[in-house]
Amino acid sequence: MTAPTLGVCYYPEHWPEERWESDAARMAEVGIGFVRIGEFAWSKLEPRPGELDFSWMVRSMDVLGRHGLKVIVGTPTATPPRWMMDKHPDMVAVDENGRPRNFGSRRHYCFSHEGYRQECARITQLLIDHVGQHPALGGWQTDNEYGCHSTTLSYSEAARQGFRTWLRQRYGTVEALNEAWGNIFWSMEYNDFDQIDLPLLTVTEPNPNASLDFRRYSSDQVAAFNKVQYDLLKAARPDLPVIHNFMGRFTDFDHYELAKTIDVASWDSYPIGHLDVSDESPEVKAQFLRQGEPDAQGLQHDIYRSVGRGRWWIMEQQPGPVNWASYNPDPLPGMARLWAWEAFAHGAEVVSYFRWRQYHSAQEQMHAGLLRPDSEPAPAYNEALQVAQELKSTGIGGEARKARVAIVYDYESEWAWSVQPQAKGFSHHAHVKAAYGPLRKRGVDVDILSAQTDSFAGYDLVIIPALFAWSDQLRTALANYEGHLLIGPRTGSKTGNFTIPSGLAPDLPRNMLDAKVVRVDSTNPAIEVSVRGGGAVRHWRERLETRAEVEFEDEEGFPVLVSQGRLFYLAASGDRSLMQRVIDRMLDEANLPTLNLPAGVRCRVRDGFRVYFNYGTGPATLVKADDEADYVVGSETIPAAGVTVARLSRGD
Amino acid sequence: MTAPTLGVCYYPEHWPEERWESDAARMAEVGIGFVRIGEFAWSKLEPRPGELDFSWMVRSMDVLGRHGLKVIVGTPTATPPRWMMDKHPDMVAVDENGRPRNFGSRRHYCFSHEGYRQECARITQLLIDHVGQHPALGGWQTDNEYGCHSTTLSYSEAARQGFRTWLRQRYGTVEALNEAWGNIFWSMEYNDFDQIDLPLLTVTEPNPNASLDFRRYSSDQVAAFNKVQYDLLKAARPDLPVIHNFMGRFTDFDHYELAKTIDVASWDSYPIGHLDVSDESPEVKAQFLRQGEPDAQGLQHDIYRSVGRGRWWIMEQQPGPVNWASYNPDPLPGMARLWAWEAFAHGAEVVSYFRWRQYHSAQEQMHAGLLRPDSEPAPAYNEALQVAQELKSTGIGGEARKARVAIVYDYESEWAWSVQPQAKGFSHHAHVKAAYGPLRKRGVDVDILSAQTDSFAGYDLVIIPALFAWSDQLRTALANYEGHLLIGPRTGSKTGNFTIPSGLAPDLPRNMLDAKVVRVDSTNPAIEVSVRGGGAVRHWRERLETRAEVEFEDEEGFPVLVSQGRLFYLAASGDRSLMQRVIDRMLDEANLPTLNLPAGVRCRVRDGFRVYFNYGTGPATLVKADDEADYVVGSETIPAAGVTVARLSRGD
Amino acid sequence: MTAPTLGVCYYPEHWPEERWESDAARMAEVGIGFVRIGEFAWSKLEPRPGELDFSWMVRSMDVLGRHGLKVIVGTPTATPPRWMMDKHPDMVAVDENGRPRNFGSRRHYCFSHEGYRQECARITQLLIDHVGQHPALGGWQTDNEYGCHSTTLSYSEAARQGFRTWLRQRYGTVEALNEAWGNIFWSMEYNDFDQIDLPLLTVTEPNPNASLDFRRYSSDQVAAFNKVQYDLLKAARPDLPVIHNFMGRFTDFDHYELAKTIDVASWDSYPIGHLDVSDESPEVKAQFLRQGEPDAQGLQHDIYRSVGRGRWWIMEQQPGPVNWASYNPDPLPGMARLWAWEAFAHGAEVVSYFRWRQYHSAQEQMHAGLLRPDSEPAPAYNEALQVAQELKSTGIGGEARKARVAIVYDYESEWAWSVQPQAKGFSHHAHVKAAYGPLRKRGVDVDILSAQTDSFAGYDLVIIPALFAWSDQLRTALANYEGHLLIGPRTGSKTGNFTIPSGLAPDLPRNMLDAKVVRVDSTNPAIEVSVRGGGAVRHWRERLETRAEVEFEDEEGFPVLVSQGRLFYLAASGDRSLMQRVIDRMLDEANLPTLNLPAGVRCRVRDGFRVYFNYGTGPATLVKADDEADYVVGSETIPAAGVTVARLSRGD
Ligand SMILES: [Zn+2]
Ligand SMILES: [Zn+2]
Ligand SMILES: [Zn+2]
Repeated sequence: MTAPTLGVCYYPEHWPEERWESDAARMAEVGIGFVRIGEFAWSKLEPRPGELDFSWMVRSMDVLGRHGLKVIVGTPTATPPRWMMDKHPDMVAVDENGRPRNFGSRRHYCFSHEGYRQECARITQLLIDHVGQHPALGGWQTDNEYGCHSTTLSYSEAARQGFRTWLRQRYGTVEALNEAWGNIFWSMEYNDFDQIDLPLLTVTEPNPNASLDFRRYSSDQVAAFNKVQYDLLKAARPDLPVIHNFMGRFTDFDHYELAKTIDVASWDSYPIGHLDVSDESPEVKAQFLRQGEPDAQGLQHDIYRSVGRGRWWIMEQQPGPVNWASYNPDPLPGMARLWAWEAFAHGAEVVSYFRWRQYHSAQEQMHAGLLRPDSEPAPAYNEALQVAQELKSTGIGGEARKARVAIVYDYESEWAWSVQPQAKGFSHHAHVKAAYGPLRKRGVDVDILSAQTDSFAGYDLVIIPALFAWSDQLRTALANYEGHLLIGPRTGSKTGNFTIPSGLAPDLPRNMLDAKVVRVDSTNPAIEVSVRGGGAVRHWRERLETRAEVEFEDEEGFPVLVSQGRLFYLAASGDRSLMQRVIDRMLDEANLPTLNLPAGVRCRVRDGFRVYFNYGTGPATLVKADDEADYVVGSETIPAAGVTVARLSRGD
Repeated sequence: MTAPTLGVCYYPEHWPEERWESDAARMAEVGIGFVRIGEFAWSKLEPRPGELDFSWMVRSMDVLGRHGLKVIVGTPTATPPRWMMDKHPDMVAVDENGRPRNFGSRRHYCFSHEGYRQECARITQLLIDHVGQHPALGGWQTDNEYGCHSTTLSYSEAARQGFRTWLRQRYGTVEALNEAWGNIFWSMEYNDFDQIDLPLLTVTEPNPNASLDFRRYSSDQVAAFNKVQYDLLKAARPDLPVIHNFMGRFTDFDHYELAKTIDVASWDSYPIGHLDVSDESPEVKAQFLRQGEPDAQGLQHDIYRSVGRGRWWIMEQQPGPVNWASYNPDPLPGMARLWAWEAFAHGAEVVSYFRWRQYHSAQEQMHAGLLRPDSEPAPAYNEALQVAQELKSTGIGGEARKARVAIVYDYESEWAWSVQPQAKGFSHHAHVKAAYGPLRKRGVDVDILSAQTDSFAGYDLVIIPALFAWSDQLRTALANYEGHLLIGPRTGSKTGNFTIPSGLAPDLPRNMLDAKVVRVDSTNPAIEVSVRGGGAVRHWRERLETRAEVEFEDEEGFPVLVSQGRLFYLAASGDRSLMQRVIDRMLDEANLPTLNLPAGVRCRVRDGFRVYFNYGTGPATLVKADDEADYVVGSETIPAAGVTVARLSRGD
Repeated sequence: MTAPTLGVCYYPEHWPEERWESDAARMAEVGIGFVRIGEFAWSKLEPRPGELDFSWMVRSMDVLGRHGLKVIVGTPTATPPRWMMDKHPDMVAVDENGRPRNFGSRRHYCFSHEGYRQECARITQLLIDHVGQHPALGGWQTDNEYGCHSTTLSYSEAARQGFRTWLRQRYGTVEALNEAWGNIFWSMEYNDFDQIDLPLLTVTEPNPNASLDFRRYSSDQVAAFNKVQYDLLKAARPDLPVIHNFMGRFTDFDHYELAKTIDVASWDSYPIGHLDVSDESPEVKAQFLRQGEPDAQGLQHDIYRSVGRGRWWIMEQQPGPVNWASYNPDPLPGMARLWAWEAFAHGAEVVSYFRWRQYHSAQEQMHAGLLRPDSEPAPAYNEALQVAQELKSTGIGGEARKARVAIVYDYESEWAWSVQPQAKGFSHHAHVKAAYGPLRKRGVDVDILSAQTDSFAGYDLVIIPALFAWSDQLRTALANYEGHLLIGPRTGSKTGNFTIPSGLAPDLPRNMLDAKVVRVDSTNPAIEVSVRGGGAVRHWRERLETRAEVEFEDEEGFPVLVSQGRLFYLAASGDRSLMQRVIDRMLDEANLPTLNLPAGVRCRVRDGFRVYFNYGTGPATLVKADDEADYVVGSETIPAAGVTVARLSRGD
């Protein structure tokens, strides 16, 4: 673990070498500790096939190192140069219309292409050879934002061949595949693996099993692609962390699986850009225009803390307006500080701003940096400076406090429901978020668990929303768990082979939950049915056949929340108000402490400090909690975009 | 004619053979008489080219037959197996972007492909050979839902060649084609038929005549495709009906034309799914969420009674939530009964639920059946049972009563206006529906006539809305007709060659209607102009030069409804309120009896019974009509989704 | 200059030759002076390669000439016949999905294709040879509506090769190109020009510099294409004008640049069709449904007066409903007269109605003409007649009065912001329009200037909104100008190489404007921030670092309008109300006279006459202006769609 430190993304190749020195000096001045470089520089390192120039990179690391900065070197594999296309004309990804994707931006490669993987191994080894022993080297980043711009799924010939091989390994015989996929339906049976095409351009939707397997295959290719680089980097420098910077909300591959070949997870946090491109309502987008949605970042932080097995960074932190959303608002003054503090409070080791100086050319010229294009400080420059000083003054370190509540988050479920929504827009992530927000509004810390978790020990409450299929590990965890459980709609409604389980959803032992989902009612989310006592259900409602106790029911008399001992089952998608009621009920059942937070304010505990951050547009007044000794940053009055840090009186 | 009987769709190939016996026994218990099988089973009948296995089908028919069930055997030609693609790589349909459609779902063949037609003849003959004399055999179904998933139009090489041949036959010389199409406009003249391409990917819209001829050609291919199977089936078993199951609201081919090679029309009725994917407003979709739009089914029933020349079935009846709409709501309890009764009242011989048991795998695993996946009865199971008992107790038989009002329904008009809407969204079907609903709200039965009708004898009122071009037959019918006529907007505004008639629309003899449409005003449907006396016009308004009597005019002073003797001409598209006024006026003119129906209630007379069905969400109270003796099912209070059957006192 | 004259578009090839005589006689009767023919007639002139027939065209010109009509002959190059595709299979344009565009409508050629350019030279020369000395010949039109149907950008192989050559010429070395484009970003560097592909199908957006250069290249091809014909036509008949008819609001190529090889600019004015397909709000579309947006035509008139260096026509004037918008409303009675008068008031030499008679066949059969398909007069026939008489009675001639206010309009800026909107929908044209409307509401005449203007002499106020990059000429004009300037948001925010200028936007000398745009806040236009004193900013707001005087500021305290001497800088996109305030302020500062116009009324001065036209749906009452002597057409009460012409008392 690294103690909380700021970082920045820097592109020495974009600037005259004369300027490196002053840049480095100013970075040090701000209090920055880490500098990421190199991840898009392949054409500068190897301008022509085999014609190498690593000297500029070494010199830039010399300069940075002289100012006490540690360098994260990125492998430049997200941006294969133009000459690479001549060496491997078939290396490009192919889109779902069968069109090869063209050179001229980035991420144009297909993960399935073996030749390109070898090129990536080659350039990785060259980096190791040239800078792997540099004293300023502090770690590695592999590639950049795997999956960004919808690049996980590729319909190339390499993918087609790879998918067949993968299916052969998974199913052994084509008869087994036909059986598993239910291919008898609509005469879709294959006589041979070589007859299987990728699931594209079918007349109506392809078999969901074919689609899900193709997503599993594609996810595996991303992991395999990363492993090639990881193995080389670890072999060379076992002491240095290998990091990947995941792009928030790109869930087309399994981040847990990929994380087996990284040491530290990191993610690229653009709260305002992400809100603009999200599915949030126009009202929410207007309300949090200059801040980002209050729980969106926290949830990602908690996911990547889980993905990184406790170790995680922000590799790219939005410092001002970005360039890639439909609209790119200016953040409220203070947000660049707030976002950093929020990340640290959730356990980040490093928060690295993207980028040092706004680049005046090419695609991202409208993306702000800590410096303006004319090298003057942008607003985030001074906010970063303030964060660095506050980190030092508080001395915060340690780890994010282990939560007493956990939620299961599962990439495969996200794929499955996008393959077969049944209610347009149905999403695992949205259901996780719908449970997460109400917890956070009560000041409750949350941990995220993968669907491969085999023990819930240490948690008082575990929530499992909209899970595709039970894993053996989860069944084990359930069986041995003595805390409270909230299981959400659609959970366990499929087997791993994308069929309805013979005992019907949620497919739990009757002594655990005596309930069957005998039918699903899916409706336009605008159509709501009130729940007696408050809130409403909409979009997804299950008809239960159950002997469990009915806790909540809707106005049409259908059970909404049922319980059997400490296991609660939620049989519908609820609006915000219902979800708050359900979560409040669970917190009460599990006897968990809550805080009385003003609207828009959230908090998180780390290392004996509770960090409050105000996502609202006006000031808020905190109520001092029983466990708090004093405020070490800010005060009980927390302005818009403000941060208050309370020191806890009794340890962590 | 078959007396009203229930049916069900069954897939023995999906279930262990041991289960067939109990399934058949339960079907008989419900009161089912017909079982459709086989229509997707090609890969089970012929797993590899020439490797045949019909034994399972024979055994399943043995079992079903033992329980007194009659079997409809479907030709499996909607689902050519994967190996077929190796035999005929060019057999696939090509979409309007020029992309071949891929294997992996269904309906991937091109109707123009001669080789595939021969394969279909071969498998049809094989079916005849193996089960054609089976004692349980009750009829045949050809293919499945021609045109579903937008598969009528294919831009394949086979279609390109076929279209050229078809044009040669239609026009004789390329000069004649140039003249008929007006190709001099924009220098689109051809020197040779071989220069003609399918109308796709043009810079701006292609010549409407080219587009319409391509639609005519494509429609002809579907009919020709069906004829191949029909001829074989009739040759083998002249005594058994050949049926096709049309998918409701797929109008890309001429169902009347196709019906020349079937004995019984049937359609697949999914009232709730169809409403979800329809153009109805969000308000209507919300109002009839769990019922379907009240007049949508009735209109289809009446269309297919016409298509089937009096003989028609429901081959697939929605039994619960489906899987293929954006949202798939649970029907109100009772709807599976209501829909069946409604169909029988409109003259259906058989209503066959789709499907027996919900299948746990593949694309339609979320589609309900009469049984749940765990073989327990779903709600529709008991509703079907009730229908079977009620059919027996009432003894209803005979035919749907011949109506006194008829509406002309024409597939070519639907194509023509989609080729050249002039007002976005203008549709023949919508205009038929706009006249149909107000009639049905007054309890008036309606017959549907094709545009090839040459006599209106027996009708007191005939309505012709938005008809593309007059046929000779219709002109004959008009000339000899003595009843009342309502001719709708845009009717007769084109010749069959898609040109404006020299005398302008509606192109009727002056002594019949002295009116010319001299200009059209088309506007966004949100912009309404009130009509004096009530209602409004919008979307399509014609400027008439006329000496006919003005019945209604709009607030800008333009005639809306004019009359000349018994012929009324409606010169605009009206809102619901105007259309009710117009229809009420016509009913009054023609002196037709009406009923006073509560909102949401509709009725239909068959065999001396008037069947009422309540599409509303609350109970309604019927007013006993003069011709009714007593209620034999239900009572004057008809609950939501309820059915009441009145026996008429004076015959039919 | 031609004195104000009416014209009409006529297609002798569509009609029996017997009808030509009476058509010509009636045209003369209406008072028409010019007839355009031939622009779509290639297949009639050359039915097969080399098989020529110009005799019909000569005969039609004979007939027209006998009635005193002057003929504009169009080169038929917008509609290459089908046989041309066999000669040049690779001549077709390719769309942004890489799909070749198909024959069957028009404009299917690629501007980059050298072979087709030579065919166009050949047919042009043939026209010259056959009709170039005809006594009725009054001028030429090249092609038809360059760029219409999105045909400027083509991704063909010819374009690919042409683009590489163009880049070689522009940049000399690939290193220079890499530097100019900033290709080091994302390793997009090229080793050779032959590696450069057209910017299509990239994974995320291509480099904006690549996109802009491809737009510049494509624009240049249109100009080069036109030059081929112009050179031949001028060589043959230096005395006759060569005209092109631009389609309104197609801005994909630089009309100023193309106009270097025409003598007279003309545009095709479809006020109602253009409103329907525009970005205007539903409210504006409903309000001006039957008139067109009041300032849309005036702005186009002023643009083409500038493009044509003072000489311009309307080549196609909407006479009634058109066929190509989503909805095609009937114009208010009088609009065909109003539009013509408006054009003449803005300086048009000729207003030519499209078309003489509605054609009963092919794509445009629903497009109105002066005659109905049955040859009876359509409403516009008599309106045209009235205009001709009024032109004669007033004796209006001369030129449009030179305005005292000018706005800079720049095609490159329109491309640049569509390449990099930063705020979705941001448009140069929209910003020009937002300044133009408020001026016109005050009765102020406006001139349009290109971005190559090097002097503002003679203007009291110059407005430069949302200009991409300063040209040297504009910098010269600015430096020497002594009048008032209003410079709009985003102006000067880029260099010509699409990079941020080192001194930041608006990139003006500090002694002219001491202000830097240090950050941009872009938001959904629905989100407004009030400006103190009235109006609001939205969509685009700049954060200024400035020592200029703050004239207006918004409620968040950000400067909106600042001034330094006579230079005003507007740092945001304003709503209508703010824009009126800003313009009123500028008019006041510049001491410019204004008129008190009723809502919906606009006016323009030409040759000592002020022409008023009422775009409203009700009558309005004019206030006689000080400089007006009397009304020579109409009166102070101007009905809906009415025209009033006042004679000015003191010269022009
Ligand atoms: Zn990034
Ligand atoms: Zn079906
Ligand atoms: Zn035109």
